Amino acid sequence: MSEYILNLLPLHEGEREEFESIAPEAVHTYARSSTVTSEQLAAATVIFGWPRPERMKEAVSLRWFQTMWAGTDEYVGMLPEGVLFTSSSGSNSRSVAEHMLTGLMAVCRRLPAYLDSQRAHVWKDEGPMKTILGGTVLVVGAGHVGSDFAKLCQGLGARTIGLKRTVSGPVAGFDQVCPMDQLDALLPQADVVALVLPHSPQTAGLMNAARIARMKDDAILISAGRGTVLDQDALAAAMTAGRLWGAALDVTDPEPLPADSPLWDVPNLLLTPHVAGGMRLEITRRKCVEMAQENLRRYLAGEKLENVVKL
Amino acid sequence: MSEYILNLLPLHEGEREEFESIAPEAVHTYARSSTVTSEQLAAATVIFGWPRPERMKEAVSLRWFQTMWAGTDEYVGMLPEGVLFTSSSGSNSRSVAEHMLTGLMAVCRRLPAYLDSQRAHVWKDEGPMKTILGGTVLVVGAGHVGSDFAKLCQGLGARTIGLKRTVSGPVAGFDQVCPMDQLDALLPQADVVALVLPHSPQTAGLMNAARIARMKDDAILISAGRGTVLDQDALAAAMTAGRLWGAALDVTDPEPLPADSPLWDVPNLLLTPHVAGGMRLEITRRKCVEMAQENLRRYLAGEKLENVVKL
Repeated sequence: MSEYILNLLPLHEGEREEFESIAPEAVHTYARSSTVTSEQLAAATVIFGWPRPERMKEAVSLRWFQTMWAGTDEYVGMLPEGVLFTSSSGSNSRSVAEHMLTGLMAVCRRLPAYLDSQRAHVWKDEGPMKTILGGTVLVVGAGHVGSDFAKLCQGLGARTIGLKRTVSGPVAGFDQVCPMDQLDALLPQADVVALVLPHSPQTAGLMNAARIARMKDDAILISAGRGTVLDQDALAAAMTAGRLWGAALDVTDPEPLPADSPLWDVPNLLLTPHVAGGMRLEITRRKCVEMAQENLRRYLAGEKLENVVKL
Repeated sequence: MSEYILNLLPLHEGEREEFESIAPEAVHTYARSSTVTSEQLAAATVIFGWPRPERMKEAVSLRWFQTMWAGTDEYVGMLPEGVLFTSSSGSNSRSVAEHMLTGLMAVCRRLPAYLDSQRAHVWKDEGPMKTILGGTVLVVGAGHVGSDFAKLCQGLGARTIGLKRTVSGPVAGFDQVCPMDQLDALLPQADVVALVLPHSPQTAGLMNAARIARMKDDAILISAGRGTVLDQDALAAAMTAGRLWGAALDVTDPEPLPADSPLWDVPNLLLTPHVAGGMRLEITRRKCVEMAQENLRRYLAGEKLENVVKL
């Protein structure tokens, strides 16, 4: 069966040749998500990249699609029947983990207040700071991102606990891994609570007002993954009332966050516009390319693919 | 010889008793720098803490003084002749190192721009980010702070090079330690240049326009220690002209930084008001107390003290 590979990945010099040497008999076509034609979509048997979900119905010859992101929810219900769907889960986990750590340290050190002073040209001491050295970091979601974030926290001297739906042994970066139903019991012990969960009916609203109330008064909340996991109004209310040391959120619900949301101005709350992952680091882009190449090799050899998504 | 110990350290419950059990025969007096009386200063044979330098001449009975900071330059010429002078060098090195890492990661992730957008209630993507994973961090000054900072950078996957006046073997945290005269040769290799030098005639103006020009176009400059080490006008000019990825400065010259300095508004330059160290973390305060206690034990036993300052 001859393959028509529509490659929408952001490739660097020499990387087209890498794909072509893995599949020398296939047709290789390169395009960008914004400029891909209906003819290209209709002919493609394999697509790599990030086509707009609403255009996937044009891909009538499609047999396999690998998205270049870890998240897959936007393609639910958008793919033609019977298409094999794989993700690039793990490709940006280091980037997201570094962003989470940056946000965590920024609020430990009160950078939001210091930047406000800087913009006002004011030299002002904001007093006590916080460190995670010797503290407990509770990571809700012990997948690729959670594991990479936990490793970074361990490196800074924190004890790490990971929560997973099903515990099946140790996970790198975690001193301890517990089932998700331990969340309520563990929240009062945590100096940092980090949410790294995908959106699903089970995760929506998981971090609600009652659970925020179980956190230590001087704990820090970090949120990556999907914004729906957190009741952000409850967080804004709790922090405005003086609870928690700080928070760093890279995801909100909805996105973009409406200009009149109370979240923007909560003291010591750092808000970034869903930029932890993506292709902002070269290591992420390259890993994405390598994951596509490895799965292409497996696909042509009839082997089991990595990161198969169950819709 | 009976001792009168004037203790100006910020002590917690139970810590007075710790000092008193180390020197049960001494007179122990506790005060704060702001409220210490002339009588207390005149009687003291030993002082721990941070008395105002201009009041040290009142300490006519003084034999030994241990400052609670790492920096000692403010006491130059202020101590009575023959007084033994020790510092708390190393007590806040972890705090300063964490602050430097926080600033470094904050500019890698463009947090200054993201916070500007947050304050304007704007959801705006700032594009590419940077990581130190796989990069080279050049630390100018391989003392306690430099070593702790280098350890943190190694933990994040960077290669670390330390510069010291005299190289006498490996230093923890550094893949390589070189003499200071290698600075010009190493600057073009560094993705991050971190200044952690005390003020001295040798260090003043060390990081001048010519050396900033030797840095990579997308390198990051970090400055802790003392502000006089850096030509900050040259840095502002270079960055305003589009050179360097970013900078994080915790020290300036003078301090406070005048409101009309160009530094405040340089893009992707994070400025904090000399708050990396101090007593902002409990681990720093406690280490300072332990260093005073250990040196007191040594002093009473006639042993050699740690952190003796040569004025």
